[in-house]
Amino acid sequence: MRSDAEYMARAIELAKLAAAEGETPVGAVVVKKSTGEIVGEGYNRRETKKSPLAHAELIALDEAAKRLGGWRIIGCDLFVTLEPCPMCAGAIINSRIERVVYGAKDPKAGSIESVQHMFELGYNHRPEAVSGVLEDECAGLLSEFFKALRKEKQKKTPPESR
Amino acid sequence: MRSDAEYMARAIELAKLAAAEGETPVGAVVVKKSTGEIVGEGYNRRETKKSPLAHAELIALDEAAKRLGGWRIIGCDLFVTLEPCPMCAGAIINSRIERVVYGAKDPKAGSIESVQHMFELGYNHRPEAVSGVLEDECAGLLSEFFKALRKEKQKKTPPESR
Repeated sequence: MRSDAEYMARAIELAKLAAAEGETPVGAVVVKKSTGEIVGEGYNRRETKKSPLAHAELIALDEAAKRLGGWRIIGCDLFVTLEPCPMCAGAIINSRIERVVYGAKDPKAGSIESVQHMFELGYNHRPEAVSGVLEDECAGLLSEFFKALRKEKQKKTPPESR
Repeated sequence: MRSDAEYMARAIELAKLAAAEGETPVGAVVVKKSTGEIVGEGYNRRETKKSPLAHAELIALDEAAKRLGGWRIIGCDLFVTLEPCPMCAGAIINSRIERVVYGAKDPKAGSIESVQHMFELGYNHRPEAVSGVLEDECAGLLSEFFKALRKEKQKKTPPESR
C-alpha cells in the first residue's frame, strides 16, 4: 500500500471533478489493503444525479462492492476528503470497511467525531478512524468553493435587494 | 392520505417480494403527503445487487427523488417494516423526509430508538418517528424467514458436523 497521503491526494483530485461540475467538492477512494489497488472511486454528484444517495463515499463503496463481488467490502480502507455524514458512516459500517481516513472535519453533519461518534456505538462492526490527513487542502477546497458560490450569488442579486 | 397501516401493508407486500428472492424481508414506501400517492418503493436486495446500498429505504428514497426531481424529498413520509439502520436513518435526514413510520424494532442496528436516537441529535433536519405500526406482522415476517433459513442450513450440514 502507498501512504495515506497518496490515497488522499487521489480523493482530492476527485473532489476537484465535483467542483468542476458545480457540486460541493468531496472525493473518496476505496483501497484493497492486500494489493494497494484502488477498487472504488467517487465524487459528490448529488445535484447532477438528483439523488440523496450520490455522496462520494456511497458511489465509491458501490463500485468497490461490484468489483469485489459482494456487499461485504472485506480487507479495504476508505479515504475521503470530508468527515462522513451519518448516511455514509452507516454505509461504511454496513460494508465492513476496516479503516476510514478523512481530511477535513464537518461540524454540521460529520458523524465520526463531530455530531456523534458512530463508530464507538454498539453496531456489529467498528471501523478504525484517522482524521486530519491533508486537512488544510481538503478544507481549502470546500471554503474556496463556497466563497466562489457566494460571489456568484451576489453578482446575480440586483443591488437594491442585497 | 390513507392510514399509516394501509401504507405499511404495502411495505409488507414489498418485504414479501424480498423474502421470495432469498433476501431478508424488509420493504419500504415513500408517500407524498399532499396527494397520498406512493412516489417510491423498495425492498431489500443486498445479495442480488451485491451492494451495501441496496436496503429497502435507499431504493425507495432514490426512486422518490428521481420522480420528484431533486435530492430533497420535500413533503413526504417514509414507511418501512423494520427500524432503519444508521445508513438509512442518515439518508432519511439528508433527503428531508418529514416523518418515518416503522413496524418492528431492530435491537442490533436500529438507529431511531435502539442503538441510538439519531433524529434527536444536532443534524440540520429532525424527522418525526412513529414506531410499532403492524409491528407483529413486520416482525413475524423476519422471524419466519430466519427460522426457514436455519432449517435449510441444518438440512445442508452433514450430521457429523452439526
